[in-house]
Amino acid sequence: MVSFAVLSLCCSVKLFAEHSESGTMSSILQVQQYDRAIHIMAMLLIGFGFLMVFVRKYGRSALTATFLLVSVALPLYMAIKQLGIFEEKGEIEQLIFAEFGAASLLIAAGAILGRIKIFQYLILGLLFIPFYLLNELIVIDDYFHIVGKVADTGGSIVIHFFGALFGIAAAVSLTSKKDMEIPIQSDATTDKYSILGSMVLWVFWPSFCAALVPVEAIPHTVVNVFIALCGSTIATYVASIAIRKKVSIADIANAALAGGVAIGATCDFASHGQAMIIGAIAGIISTVGFAILQEKQQKFHKIIDTCGVSNLHGIPGIFGGLAAIVVVDGLDIPAQLKGIAITAAIAIIAGLLVGKLISLFGKPTEIYDDFAEFIDAE
Amino acid sequence: MVSFAVLSLCCSVKLFAEHSESGTMSSILQVQQYDRAIHIMAMLLIGFGFLMVFVRKYGRSALTATFLLVSVALPLYMAIKQLGIFEEKGEIEQLIFAEFGAASLLIAAGAILGRIKIFQYLILGLLFIPFYLLNELIVIDDYFHIVGKVADTGGSIVIHFFGALFGIAAAVSLTSKKDMEIPIQSDATTDKYSILGSMVLWVFWPSFCAALVPVEAIPHTVVNVFIALCGSTIATYVASIAIRKKVSIADIANAALAGGVAIGATCDFASHGQAMIIGAIAGIISTVGFAILQEKQQKFHKIIDTCGVSNLHGIPGIFGGLAAIVVVDGLDIPAQLKGIAITAAIAIIAGLLVGKLISLFGKPTEIYDDFAEFIDAE
Amino acid sequence: MVSFAVLSLCCSVKLFAEHSESGTMSSILQVQQYDRAIHIMAMLLIGFGFLMVFVRKYGRSALTATFLLVSVALPLYMAIKQLGIFEEKGEIEQLIFAEFGAASLLIAAGAILGRIKIFQYLILGLLFIPFYLLNELIVIDDYFHIVGKVADTGGSIVIHFFGALFGIAAAVSLTSKKDMEIPIQSDATTDKYSILGSMVLWVFWPSFCAALVPVEAIPHTVVNVFIALCGSTIATYVASIAIRKKVSIADIANAALAGGVAIGATCDFASHGQAMIIGAIAGIISTVGFAILQEKQQKFHKIIDTCGVSNLHGIPGIFGGLAAIVVVDGLDIPAQLKGIAITAAIAIIAGLLVGKLISLFGKPTEIYDDFAEFIDAE
Repeated sequence: MVSFAVLSLCCSVKLFAEHSESGTMSSILQVQQYDRAIHIMAMLLIGFGFLMVFVRKYGRSALTATFLLVSVALPLYMAIKQLGIFEEKGEIEQLIFAEFGAASLLIAAGAILGRIKIFQYLILGLLFIPFYLLNELIVIDDYFHIVGKVADTGGSIVIHFFGALFGIAAAVSLTSKKDMEIPIQSDATTDKYSILGSMVLWVFWPSFCAALVPVEAIPHTVVNVFIALCGSTIATYVASIAIRKKVSIADIANAALAGGVAIGATCDFASHGQAMIIGAIAGIISTVGFAILQEKQQKFHKIIDTCGVSNLHGIPGIFGGLAAIVVVDGLDIPAQLKGIAITAAIAIIAGLLVGKLISLFGKPTEIYDDFAEFIDAE
Repeated sequence: MVSFAVLSLCCSVKLFAEHSESGTMSSILQVQQYDRAIHIMAMLLIGFGFLMVFVRKYGRSALTATFLLVSVALPLYMAIKQLGIFEEKGEIEQLIFAEFGAASLLIAAGAILGRIKIFQYLILGLLFIPFYLLNELIVIDDYFHIVGKVADTGGSIVIHFFGALFGIAAAVSLTSKKDMEIPIQSDATTDKYSILGSMVLWVFWPSFCAALVPVEAIPHTVVNVFIALCGSTIATYVASIAIRKKVSIADIANAALAGGVAIGATCDFASHGQAMIIGAIAGIISTVGFAILQEKQQKFHKIIDTCGVSNLHGIPGIFGGLAAIVVVDGLDIPAQLKGIAITAAIAIIAGLLVGKLISLFGKPTEIYDDFAEFIDAE
Repeated sequence: MVSFAVLSLCCSVKLFAEHSESGTMSSILQVQQYDRAIHIMAMLLIGFGFLMVFVRKYGRSALTATFLLVSVALPLYMAIKQLGIFEEKGEIEQLIFAEFGAASLLIAAGAILGRIKIFQYLILGLLFIPFYLLNELIVIDDYFHIVGKVADTGGSIVIHFFGALFGIAAAVSLTSKKDMEIPIQSDATTDKYSILGSMVLWVFWPSFCAALVPVEAIPHTVVNVFIALCGSTIATYVASIAIRKKVSIADIANAALAGGVAIGATCDFASHGQAMIIGAIAGIISTVGFAILQEKQQKFHKIIDTCGVSNLHGIPGIFGGLAAIVVVDGLDIPAQLKGIAITAAIAIIAGLLVGKLISLFGKPTEIYDDFAEFIDAE
């Protein structure tokens, strides 16, 4: 009897201890998510920001636009998420979802970079986030039960493909014929800034893909992402030489990242070998895009996609989404295809609409030029 | 009896296991603090360092000074802390406190940047840290029981406000009239370096504010800091346009960070809405400082505050300290005001004194110029 | 009886809970290692990459080479490690070991930077990694039981000293007399990039040294590394002035890091005071190397070691390895000396061999120049 009482006491003490311990445990896991959230923030501001500095005479605008886009996207996303439609989540998880939205927005902005006024980036952000959330609600949360389970842990489809398509659609509806005749100039100094941005994206990409992955799946996921990036980096160098005879530093800065874009959908499922193959193919596809398609595009359509987001995020994104069909055992293939199709539909319609709305607010006197809006510009 | 024995055994095994487990747990928490310590170190060297590169022809000196100031401050702070006056703390906690001191020192140095010789930065560091520690001892540790409990988790008062006031006081006592007639030049290339520094500070700021916050309070704290920074970034853009007609990239690089300065005092107490408001107000105040006061200052006082630390750290710092009165429930208001007043008094007296002492070691032949001290300078 | 049954149940429940809890615990520890792996990755790409940008007109090549070297080294190292000769380890541990190999490779490449074609960096990577692994197998794993226990937690010997010696040996066997007559030019803009690379290395160095240290030893280790870096930074400034009369920014960018190199072998054993001394001595040695030896080298041998890796990694590396004799209680001194000797032997033989092999693939038409291989180069 005594022993029983002691036992009960002992057990209840233990349960209490376990309770508070599991509280600490859960906080520790959240703080680990926070470390990844910080890595993603470095990608958003420093990575995307400096990758876009390659446009000559437009560096200040590109960096200011990056600051503003992120600063609009984060609070707006978190505010909408608290309206009650969405599942409640931890604050850090919320923050990471908001960062994903900001990443997609920066991709979209990359397509029209230099052809709108600075304050129009704010409007772009305000209009983009609701559509992005709508797509997330339909494709990832499957709120209306019309899609099923889509494999897209690192956002190949809903972040990269969505952002790229939205941006190109917006570019089509807001870029005038006259704008298209003005070439984009880059210069050698700014190229080093682009590589800096690119390296920041490369280094922290695994934290992007593994941001919300369960703790025990993180090691395999992050190693996969690094391997995919190694694959696309080497493939980009080889493809760049093969196509152009000489290396283009812009290919290296951009297409080297295509492995990160493409591995997103399958980063927690692929084997290391598959990750290498997906990365290498993405690097080749993307370099072909920059080295061949973009040259042709410039002939026929002139400039539409300032940063070439179709080549870095659009095509590698959809390739990654489709790669899941081969890689993920027991994948719901119709769901995956429906997810891609719905994402494409929403991105294009929303992009065309938002582009038109933005164009109502006027256009810059001089495109690709800091001078109009900054004091002391070069 | 047998069961009791087994029970005891079971419990004692468990206690032992728990003991070693809680040892691991405490190490895990320390390593998480370490991750934030690294983020802060990135702010100190890369953030502050490159933010100060905007002074034309003085980039090498600014970066070397940053290196030296950090390298003096960290070991000196840690050495003094081990003299026995202070509470003993974990090594990482000690390191973080030392980094806080280094941050305040870099802010102080920003005010006199370019007007002392390189080795005088070493002297500045040696003299600053003891006074900083004295203020910390009085205001934060309340060693003499004369202040009470001050709300200043992220250091709006004891780090930012102290550093800014110290720097301006030192500037007043060491800058000659002749120095004040020499304008500070900036150029477009270096502006991008400033933005790089600014972005590094922005991205890692939440780790600065949450460095020593208990694990379970970290999520709310870091989201607050990001929201405050978003608020000040957007407010800076709007205020910069409103005041100057065009955007100044220097406003963006600097005032966008004012939200981080101001949220420091209340980062773990404020609601997200309050964080947004504090950030936005800080951004406006700081931009007004850079765009209006500084222009006027240049007319009347000529150049005193090279980096405008009064506008970025001084005024937003005291604003953040006062905002606690509205935000923090049950705040000891007299303590908060006493904390601010004592910080101001120590900073001004120590700054005047240290400025005078530094001036005894001579002055540069040419101010704002790498040439005098570096080989192969531009 | 009942109580016994309940007890058993209670205990077995507890055991189960503990099992899954320790699973989470082990995952948490792995994710903490991952954070350090990311810091190291930032050092490899951004740190080493930008530190090598100081060669004028060769910036694009240096950054592209960095990308390629890392992208070859990581997967190759991990693939060889899975051949079955080596102990099985966690995926993140594997990744960190691979990053160590990549760091050593980048050091080696620094010696011959600018004097091979871009694709030859790929060949260098392919040939370097097997030799690096051989040395690791013999010296660290003591696979053949001929060495004993070597103290080299942070890789002073097997990473820095090995890489530097390999690189210089390779340089000797592939650099033509004509190459040696061409001076290396640096310019002021690129100097700021070098400092950026240097600062990234400085900030994240503690994560490099503590990457695989047990969780409870991390606080002491990382503080030691920071203190050693502070010591070498101040010592570098003082030595640079003392030797050259003016400061060389290249000394600051490079020798300031020597403390990190030298503390590697003893980072988890040294006291903070010892760390400061080791760092300061390393800074002086390294600055003497850059300021005196290198000038002389240029007279007698002309240019062999592009980035001065002998001065930053070679001499401070062996100094750090030898410092263990004084610092580490109960060190197996013959093992330590054997470790250094074997590392030197393998590095020199392998370097000479690999240099010769690389030279079979031709040489650049123009050395230290992006023009030959990049479109749109300056």
